[in-house]
Amino acid sequence: MNSNKPLFTVLLVKITVGLVCSLISAHQAIADQPRVDQPLPSWNESATKTAIIDFVRRVTEQDSPDFIPVDQRIATFDNDGTLWSEQPAYFQAFFIIDRVRTLAAQHPQWSTQEPFASAIKGDFKAIASSGHQGLLELTMATHAGMTTEQFDQIVKDWIGVAKHPQTGLRFTEMVYQPMLELLAYLNANGFKTFIVSGGGIDFMRPWAEQVYGIPPERVIGSSIKTKYELRSGQPVLVRVAEMNFVNDKAGKPVAIHHHIGRRPVMAFGNSDGDLEMLQWTSDQECPSLAVIIHHTDAEREFAYDRQSPVGRLDQALDIAAQKGWMVVDMKSDWNRIYPRPSND
Amino acid sequence: MNSNKPLFTVLLVKITVGLVCSLISAHQAIADQPRVDQPLPSWNESATKTAIIDFVRRVTEQDSPDFIPVDQRIATFDNDGTLWSEQPAYFQAFFIIDRVRTLAAQHPQWSTQEPFASAIKGDFKAIASSGHQGLLELTMATHAGMTTEQFDQIVKDWIGVAKHPQTGLRFTEMVYQPMLELLAYLNANGFKTFIVSGGGIDFMRPWAEQVYGIPPERVIGSSIKTKYELRSGQPVLVRVAEMNFVNDKAGKPVAIHHHIGRRPVMAFGNSDGDLEMLQWTSDQECPSLAVIIHHTDAEREFAYDRQSPVGRLDQALDIAAQKGWMVVDMKSDWNRIYPRPSND
Repeated sequence: MNSNKPLFTVLLVKITVGLVCSLISAHQAIADQPRVDQPLPSWNESATKTAIIDFVRRVTEQDSPDFIPVDQRIATFDNDGTLWSEQPAYFQAFFIIDRVRTLAAQHPQWSTQEPFASAIKGDFKAIASSGHQGLLELTMATHAGMTTEQFDQIVKDWIGVAKHPQTGLRFTEMVYQPMLELLAYLNANGFKTFIVSGGGIDFMRPWAEQVYGIPPERVIGSSIKTKYELRSGQPVLVRVAEMNFVNDKAGKPVAIHHHIGRRPVMAFGNSDGDLEMLQWTSDQECPSLAVIIHHTDAEREFAYDRQSPVGRLDQALDIAAQKGWMVVDMKSDWNRIYPRPSND
Repeated sequence: MNSNKPLFTVLLVKITVGLVCSLISAHQAIADQPRVDQPLPSWNESATKTAIIDFVRRVTEQDSPDFIPVDQRIATFDNDGTLWSEQPAYFQAFFIIDRVRTLAAQHPQWSTQEPFASAIKGDFKAIASSGHQGLLELTMATHAGMTTEQFDQIVKDWIGVAKHPQTGLRFTEMVYQPMLELLAYLNANGFKTFIVSGGGIDFMRPWAEQVYGIPPERVIGSSIKTKYELRSGQPVLVRVAEMNFVNDKAGKPVAIHHHIGRRPVMAFGNSDGDLEMLQWTSDQECPSLAVIIHHTDAEREFAYDRQSPVGRLDQALDIAAQKGWMVVDMKSDWNRIYPRPSND
């Protein structure tokens, strides 16, 4: 999670509205494919866009002194707040709440047992006050106890219908159009793009390929343990209620090494949770670009940074200034936020 | 490790000869690229070769009822005994012994302290008798305590010069030519090939791309923990003397899910350590091919199966017969073992 607090601790705060979970037909956000000669159309003609394009040219042109061979073109992206929105809570928190409500019928005791009772009521403040332990309980109750294939289907079913309570958009419609264009632009230039998120690895994989064009093997996230079993002779992987890895802060370079085995040359984040990934990317001899997406657009999206309980961007903003990392100003650098306007 | 015993427990047994660690110029094994219209030239024209080619055609031809979309063409390969030899001990054991000898100058107490004293002497029987704990000590003493970049260089330096004590070949020259051709053939048909080995993930990555054409992000193996640190302001990942994951037996499907997030449609192994990976691959609705490499050629390589301390193939051979898994008979199915004959 993009935060300096334990996993999920701040997952649910700041929520003041209820949840809408309508059952309407699925509509996935699809990146408009920009023309190769006019990349990044949703980025304004600013110094930011120029710097990104200049960097990519500099490392991909064969005769450039900064040329990077194609197999070393690794670009890593945080997800929450970098590829899609994360306010008023990480979107995975909405999944948790919806699942608790769905499962409540099988757990009548939840109507009076915290933190489940608050989750069922949609009282996000009360949930947050249950602390790390309460949020871990909610996570395990909704993410463990089924096979990986069952969980995959549960996420697919949910992501196809659930909507953001404020925008009325499906969560996958709240991905950033400029970042979809950037992913496509980097892929077209021989980069391998990876998600490196504090969110659940198996929460992202069911839709990341369709929405971002990033296949499951290039999605890295937090995980619970799984266990191999034969059930009636058929092999299954069962999701176990025990944390495996928290992919946040100093965990991100560790997971990047474990999954990718190479150091990224580009990294994109938006919070202090991405600081170590950005350091790991920028402080090397190879040419590199470390980028922070700064949420500055209260009108079209959300504006937050240093004091935000979700997506806190404080220390990393200071270090970005010291190190000369690129800071994307969403308000001035992007002419479009989502693939389509909200409430269409 | 390909065994039904704890990690490294049988790593060193059966060794009766000393180690040769000559310093001669590097010569990497390179797969001859077969012509697309005549794939797998080092495979004899047997039912095995026909079945592999038929399977690949069946799942890649657009109008086939068994067509598998390109993004789902995942093929996983064990390493020790499947892509390169593993006798008389896993080749990583030779690395450990050579490292202990190199490091002994800094640890004078090792000359009398077990299991190091036996390692320095090259007394593999005595090492094996130190049991799991002794072998874990040797592993940590040689694999931990440095940065990931330092370890990468140590492995590269070693693999460039170390030689197998019996064949006189470099270890990377003891890869199987028929398997190199198979990897190339599958890549040409849109498959993503992954190594899924009990061997160390960071022991394989430094040379797997050059030797097998498999990039670091598609190498999965056993691992120790790493820790992110800033040293004089520079970020490093430090290898810590604590196991992270043992990628053997039921761990293989777990790691496949964690790293790849998809179920393989082809899997290749050679021992009981690969049984669960083969089950996980074969027992699904999607068309699949599970393959066991059976070491039957004492003259050109090694002959072993049910009772072998290294690469024991017992239960998996029975299940292969029940399930109809393909069993490759190295002696009759392969007209060539290594890229070049030994002792050239």
